[in-house]
Amino acid sequence: MDSDSFEIIAKKAKEASKKTAVLSTDVKNKALFNIAEKLEQNKESILEANREDLKLAKELLDSGKLSNSNYNRLKLDENKLRDMILGVKDVAKLPDPVGKVLLKRELDEGLILTKISCPIGVLGIIFEARPDVISQISSLAVKSGNVVILKGGKEAINTNKKIMSVIQDALSRTDGFPENVLNQIYTREDVNKMLLQDKYIDLIIPRGGNSLVKFIKENTKIPVLGHSDGVCHIYTDESADFEKAKKIIIDSKTQYPSACNSVETLLVHKDWKYKNELIDALEKSGIKIVYSPESWHKEYSDKILSYKEVNSIEDAINHINEFSSGHTESIITENRKNAEIFMNSVDSSGVYHNVSTRFADGYRYGFGAEVGISTNKTHARGPVGLEGLTIYKYNITGDGQIVKDYSEGAKTFHHKDL
Amino acid sequence: MDSDSFEIIAKKAKEASKKTAVLSTDVKNKALFNIAEKLEQNKESILEANREDLKLAKELLDSGKLSNSNYNRLKLDENKLRDMILGVKDVAKLPDPVGKVLLKRELDEGLILTKISCPIGVLGIIFEARPDVISQISSLAVKSGNVVILKGGKEAINTNKKIMSVIQDALSRTDGFPENVLNQIYTREDVNKMLLQDKYIDLIIPRGGNSLVKFIKENTKIPVLGHSDGVCHIYTDESADFEKAKKIIIDSKTQYPSACNSVETLLVHKDWKYKNELIDALEKSGIKIVYSPESWHKEYSDKILSYKEVNSIEDAINHINEFSSGHTESIITENRKNAEIFMNSVDSSGVYHNVSTRFADGYRYGFGAEVGISTNKTHARGPVGLEGLTIYKYNITGDGQIVKDYSEGAKTFHHKDL
Repeated sequence: MDSDSFEIIAKKAKEASKKTAVLSTDVKNKALFNIAEKLEQNKESILEANREDLKLAKELLDSGKLSNSNYNRLKLDENKLRDMILGVKDVAKLPDPVGKVLLKRELDEGLILTKISCPIGVLGIIFEARPDVISQISSLAVKSGNVVILKGGKEAINTNKKIMSVIQDALSRTDGFPENVLNQIYTREDVNKMLLQDKYIDLIIPRGGNSLVKFIKENTKIPVLGHSDGVCHIYTDESADFEKAKKIIIDSKTQYPSACNSVETLLVHKDWKYKNELIDALEKSGIKIVYSPESWHKEYSDKILSYKEVNSIEDAINHINEFSSGHTESIITENRKNAEIFMNSVDSSGVYHNVSTRFADGYRYGFGAEVGISTNKTHARGPVGLEGLTIYKYNITGDGQIVKDYSEGAKTFHHKDL
Repeated sequence: MDSDSFEIIAKKAKEASKKTAVLSTDVKNKALFNIAEKLEQNKESILEANREDLKLAKELLDSGKLSNSNYNRLKLDENKLRDMILGVKDVAKLPDPVGKVLLKRELDEGLILTKISCPIGVLGIIFEARPDVISQISSLAVKSGNVVILKGGKEAINTNKKIMSVIQDALSRTDGFPENVLNQIYTREDVNKMLLQDKYIDLIIPRGGNSLVKFIKENTKIPVLGHSDGVCHIYTDESADFEKAKKIIIDSKTQYPSACNSVETLLVHKDWKYKNELIDALEKSGIKIVYSPESWHKEYSDKILSYKEVNSIEDAINHINEFSSGHTESIITENRKNAEIFMNSVDSSGVYHNVSTRFADGYRYGFGAEVGISTNKTHARGPVGLEGLTIYKYNITGDGQIVKDYSEGAKTFHHKDL
């Protein structure tokens, strides 16, 4: 595959997508169990390839060119591998998202409309240097009947190549599973070529930093699913319980500060009587508080939190709808009515009451896995699992019906749902 | 509104969208019945405004600058007005697409995830010179809780302004209905500004010619819903019934040749014994047959049909997946197995068996109305009615739950659907 030009890869991918669209659930699940088995058998060589990447990454780390958290994401160990394998099996156990009848309607006697779910086609996925992502994305793609073209972070190149070759081997041993379903590209140039191939690529899913996502959105006509910023908010209402507030905010900020669903701005009702106590508690847990209006757009990815007092819940909602990136927001309140107002009026992919923003995640939602989290207002929003990788088509079966009869009144539609 | 800069219109539209998102079904339906009533009361002045447009259009028609079919689309009469009013009432009677619980899941005891449908937000809609479209789009927008910015064809400017002012009047008389929900822009410059406002506009829906849609896709980061070409195919299989084939092809080509769901290419199995007879019949009905491979991309919008013989159903499917615009295709066959293969393998928004391609239409599907037909592979495909104008958000309610407890194993998710 290395020697193929990108257009050939894309064309073959499109051809393969016609085959994966009609695969039986059984073949897809066998492929997934084969992947799990082969990953299990090749644990040692995967860890070996990962050690090669880590050797180079250590140099980058030491010279300050790679962050500690990125180094840790790159690193595979027995536990991460076990979770990867479990994840693949979990996806096998999920219901097939393809071929679901979403609507069945008799338009007129003998004229039947069926809306049926189907794969999107070819997905271009660009992801950060986290090798465990590759098995998650691959299993979601296999199960949903899509074909993927993957570009992983360059720091993980050896690990990615090894994992991909193990997965490819598993797929080629699966009876009836077509070729060219998982494709890997390696260079930024190939990514740029991919962005131009709207004839063959149906959806781009970038996972990674703000600047990557912005670059992609600006340079392609292909639909893009994902999020650039993760500026999440917590609003502590006048009637908030102090212990809940403290616990939720500390979890939302410190449990994994570089995650996109970590909180970045805390809004507090001016009359909440525990506000000073809360700031003390947050600072004691290692959180730095920032009070300036310039910080309201900031995604720190660190133990830093913007702070603002608001006059009312309406103020809080307005602030969020103005400054939020539309990812996830939470209200802390004992007032049910305010909780309801907040959840109805805040326009984000996740709107929570009395829980940590960190729950925004496909696994936690019970989707088995996710290809990413979307802040789009179309197609799929929030954590995207199998369902977000499907679309539908409309079939009609009849026996010679023509539109002329209906437009001239000889026949009429009766639209009965079946 | 005329004096506002486009950015102010867009900003006000976004603000209005927060209000329409939480409107009750009752208020939305009252608004729709008010629109129907006001249109009824103002029939004469709408027809008067239309006559003004027709006077200018007649000059363009006579000098060859406007086609006959575009002139007819522009023209309103009692029947079209009656259908417009009925259409608005029909949308009022449809179920509210907003606030539907799409998923309710207990993640753990007391931790409830709800996936709930909501409006997309602000839609930018650019449509051809068909004044009846304005009431269709407006009623779908009102019912789905979206705000729209409309740009109609310039030939219909007087009619559009009149209809909009009637609709605006009806909305302003509806208790609890917010301002700035329907906004109109008039110039190409404003359209260009709209394409840049990805902060305020969530979705662009262009209805119109190929070049308009292509221009828009190339000049915006905002998601675009629609179709550029409508290159639809009919495949007449070896076992096709002659009478059905003849009737369906003539309807698909001649019932409304300039519609996007009219057939453009006829594929015929080389061994079908009626092929010559069919060509005779098509030519007798006024259809011109074209045999050259250069025609396979063509959308004629006229009584012209590309013709190709194929060796097998696989050949037909490959031809369609290569040359189709993904709109609508139909197979004519008495062979059930072949029908099934065709419907599974053809990757278009509508795939039919033994019926005319002209059925691809929101009204005929029972959606009440449509904002257009989409050939996208994401979000909404085929005729787009109320459902295609919604997205969803995820709400979680809890009582202080944090992610740390789950990631450290103190608690586990049980994911029970409610």
